[in-house]
Amino acid sequence: MAARQSAILLIGCPDAKGLVASVSGFLYEHGANILSADEHRDDASERFFMRIEWDLADFELDDAAFRSAFRNRVAERFHMDWRVEYSHKPLRVAVFVSRYLHCLADLLHRHKTGELAADIRLIVSNHEDAQRHAGFYGIPFEYIPLQPDRKAEAESRQLALLAEHGIDLVVLARYMQVLSPEFVARHAGRIINVHHSFLPAFSGAKPYHAAFERGVKLIGATAHYVTEILDDGPIIDQEVIRVSHRDQLEELIEKGRDAERMVLSRAVRWHLQHRVLLCGKKTVIFD
Amino acid sequence: MAARQSAILLIGCPDAKGLVASVSGFLYEHGANILSADEHRDDASERFFMRIEWDLADFELDDAAFRSAFRNRVAERFHMDWRVEYSHKPLRVAVFVSRYLHCLADLLHRHKTGELAADIRLIVSNHEDAQRHAGFYGIPFEYIPLQPDRKAEAESRQLALLAEHGIDLVVLARYMQVLSPEFVARHAGRIINVHHSFLPAFSGAKPYHAAFERGVKLIGATAHYVTEILDDGPIIDQEVIRVSHRDQLEELIEKGRDAERMVLSRAVRWHLQHRVLLCGKKTVIFD
Amino acid sequence: MAARQSAILLIGCPDAKGLVASVSGFLYEHGANILSADEHRDDASERFFMRIEWDLADFELDDAAFRSAFRNRVAERFHMDWRVEYSHKPLRVAVFVSRYLHCLADLLHRHKTGELAADIRLIVSNHEDAQRHAGFYGIPFEYIPLQPDRKAEAESRQLALLAEHGIDLVVLARYMQVLSPEFVARHAGRIINVHHSFLPAFSGAKPYHAAFERGVKLIGATAHYVTEILDDGPIIDQEVIRVSHRDQLEELIEKGRDAERMVLSRAVRWHLQHRVLLCGKKTVIFD
Amino acid sequence: MAARQSAILLIGCPDAKGLVASVSGFLYEHGANILSADEHRDDASERFFMRIEWDLADFELDDAAFRSAFRNRVAERFHMDWRVEYSHKPLRVAVFVSRYLHCLADLLHRHKTGELAADIRLIVSNHEDAQRHAGFYGIPFEYIPLQPDRKAEAESRQLALLAEHGIDLVVLARYMQVLSPEFVARHAGRIINVHHSFLPAFSGAKPYHAAFERGVKLIGATAHYVTEILDDGPIIDQEVIRVSHRDQLEELIEKGRDAERMVLSRAVRWHLQHRVLLCGKKTVIFD
Repeated sequence: MAARQSAILLIGCPDAKGLVASVSGFLYEHGANILSADEHRDDASERFFMRIEWDLADFELDDAAFRSAFRNRVAERFHMDWRVEYSHKPLRVAVFVSRYLHCLADLLHRHKTGELAADIRLIVSNHEDAQRHAGFYGIPFEYIPLQPDRKAEAESRQLALLAEHGIDLVVLARYMQVLSPEFVARHAGRIINVHHSFLPAFSGAKPYHAAFERGVKLIGATAHYVTEILDDGPIIDQEVIRVSHRDQLEELIEKGRDAERMVLSRAVRWHLQHRVLLCGKKTVIFD
Repeated sequence: MAARQSAILLIGCPDAKGLVASVSGFLYEHGANILSADEHRDDASERFFMRIEWDLADFELDDAAFRSAFRNRVAERFHMDWRVEYSHKPLRVAVFVSRYLHCLADLLHRHKTGELAADIRLIVSNHEDAQRHAGFYGIPFEYIPLQPDRKAEAESRQLALLAEHGIDLVVLARYMQVLSPEFVARHAGRIINVHHSFLPAFSGAKPYHAAFERGVKLIGATAHYVTEILDDGPIIDQEVIRVSHRDQLEELIEKGRDAERMVLSRAVRWHLQHRVLLCGKKTVIFD
Repeated sequence: MAARQSAILLIGCPDAKGLVASVSGFLYEHGANILSADEHRDDASERFFMRIEWDLADFELDDAAFRSAFRNRVAERFHMDWRVEYSHKPLRVAVFVSRYLHCLADLLHRHKTGELAADIRLIVSNHEDAQRHAGFYGIPFEYIPLQPDRKAEAESRQLALLAEHGIDLVVLARYMQVLSPEFVARHAGRIINVHHSFLPAFSGAKPYHAAFERGVKLIGATAHYVTEILDDGPIIDQEVIRVSHRDQLEELIEKGRDAERMVLSRAVRWHLQHRVLLCGKKTVIFD
Repeated sequence: MAARQSAILLIGCPDAKGLVASVSGFLYEHGANILSADEHRDDASERFFMRIEWDLADFELDDAAFRSAFRNRVAERFHMDWRVEYSHKPLRVAVFVSRYLHCLADLLHRHKTGELAADIRLIVSNHEDAQRHAGFYGIPFEYIPLQPDRKAEAESRQLALLAEHGIDLVVLARYMQVLSPEFVARHAGRIINVHHSFLPAFSGAKPYHAAFERGVKLIGATAHYVTEILDDGPIIDQEVIRVSHRDQLEELIEKGRDAERMVLSRAVRWHLQHRVLLCGKKTVIFD
């Protein structure tokens, strides 16, 4: 079953008649057997979103031929934003982490069990704590310390590494540093962060402390794409866990880790499976 | 927005190439603007399921013309089970209830607020308790007592009422009588029951008592289509609620009511919106 | 079982040795059989909280004797805030509501089934919509319109009604008016509101609109005590419901109603059962 | 804060007047400052359960003196089952595992972060797969293969190891072998298993396959004490995760792993913190 190779086409465009017919007609003509398809019309923006996955077994077009033919015959006509991905070409991923290692350990374990179909190329950290985990799972580790007055230098080093490895996705697994606007711009829509609160509540620093002060009865975590504005990017997934008056700050942090792990791993999995589309400041999740 | 009239096409058939292209091509030719579409391939049975909804504004075919053309040009070719529904033709519903009225009260309130787009034609009960609720919400009430030795007679009366009102869906909202195989057969796939446990655990009578005895930490409720075998029909939705050692039987029953209400109202809403397809003993929910 | 009469003692005081021994010793001396007891020490404030419930069957002290003896022998020594309640003296409740009736209908149904042990004395509204529900459940209805320039007058009328009926608890069941600081002060700790968001996210007006704009993946509701500052009072309970990109504003509002109902009814039940204690800006829930 | 040493007293006995007064009076006399206390009366069995934790800072009795005095002055009078535990004497734990390592990896990571206050003495497995994890976390690993015809021999070796290390708790972290009644009897109430279904649904082998066949909409996991009868012991915790028709067997297994991890780690944590009491076939959880 794992041997089946499939292509995934992701489309966003102004709504118009004939979209589904044109796309599915084009695929049919070239021998595609559709495995699944999802469509969504966003009423507010009047845009149409589509994710179609087909078996490559009898498909007649290779990647280059598909891109050329699809662009000319379908995509331009409907003014589509589109991309095609392949199940046998897993994304190349870099995980950034600081000193809290629970999300990293969780991602690496899921990767090992086969839950996360990714090519994790490197782990980057401003601390050395994660090195043993990296070694245990056989992933290259890059220690890039962040001295306050030399952040630009460190970021250059990070960007060089991402370029060198052809990284498709950066996962901030409790990476406690703010990325520069330049960094974000160069990897727009390809950086996923986990914030340890139910956004937009408790954005910024020390959300568990703030939640504890406020006396909330549920604590949360949010996985989102990183944009220039802190904790403001499109939300991919959120999770909450019940707490009570018996839970002190320490227990909030402990319980919160479970929400963080769940939400980040789900968001990363959806991204790796090409199930997430951007719709303005929101996400469409074709799960 | 409420004024938009749409058609919903539901399809199940053996998987084959060209299915999506043929359906969407056919719709496009006749002026359909697709609002949403969902497809699913069931690997075990190799069947394909589709739900497509389109705006009727510019659509050229009326119901009869559509049925004839779609059958001849698409459905027969692919050996489809299919039906078409219309957003402006809400299903005619009968609610059966005994003495526990919480699900009935919930459904009637949701109907009144507009959550459930249905034409609730009648409430049928073997007790008189529900009469006041029926009156309050302006729904005809039929009291059909069930004497143990004259059940067939009562069921005949029920069936006659369903036929007379052209009932599309029977909702068993904590109706504590077992329907005969004949009744079930005549409304196959069109009877939704709520069972007050997390099936298949605690099927049959007194599930809360059994759950209390076993000491479970979550109690559940299940909405399912009724088949000849008790509590065995295709599951539409399930819900659980956390309980603790502090909860005695009475509290289990109380908390369970919330799960029952949630699960039954969701299942009924999905059915009314034509989002549920049968796949053998399972359901496909295009929510 | 329902006939068992019990007393509930609620205590908050600076932590000290001998607290539990003194309280339980006092009760034992007078023939109390303890049914349940909960204690909690809040580390931040170093205060101790206790809820003890005992069977009145063999208890030797009537209410007046208990109050006098407990004050003199225990409460003053430990500088306790305390009160005693009785299971056979249900709280007198007034429900305030505007035009959205789902929380009201839910509370009244739960009251009728026996879930909420309360003496619901009156329903107050600035609209006439709720009158039929009040009549159906046999609760007196007071229509007090709120003209913008005569709000003080209307509030005087409300306060007079609360005093007249000896109301112990005011439930704001989607009552869309802000109460004056004077009103709040006169019923401090005895007004429960349901806010239709996961506080502190989306406080203030139109939270569903704001949640829809932000693209959250869970919507929430919060039940809290009302204080002078809007949406800032101690939180009693919170609930969330999963939403997706398919849910438009209308669906958020619909789904949110379920969260509102759940959270408000739980908060009211806990208050009616004397399970909620205030600890600064937070609540201790002895459920 | 971590330095605070406390004692935890766990009691189960026939309900009687004066229980709380006697226990708390005894503790007070000897200088105990109570940190938390929970009591529960089980109506069905008329038994009373208590968990009291106190600061040892000013407490006058050492372990031996406490045991002797408490037995003579309180416990015998009320026919108590009781035990005392100490926060600074963490339980000695052995983890049994087969080839699925997700629960093991989760427990070891939580142990390392300090969430699980335990002395994990050894990991026992009938396969060699877990050896690397054991090494990474620095826990001794015992490989005890299980040949079908020599199970008794292997079990003798296991029991000898448990005795040698003075193991207080055996955690079956997806250990796929049935323990003999003798093994269970020797560690009664001290073996926690995770079963990969929502018990009592799908007990026995291959629960995910059965759940997939039945078409459930929630899959679950259950942590329970092991008794002689398979999957029948007292339930400590349960968890469910939503699934849909899109989830094939493989996805059920994947999603189920999250439920297993959550439920097993919570159950183990509660046991390690002495929060679980047995009440016939049920558990009382003082969380």
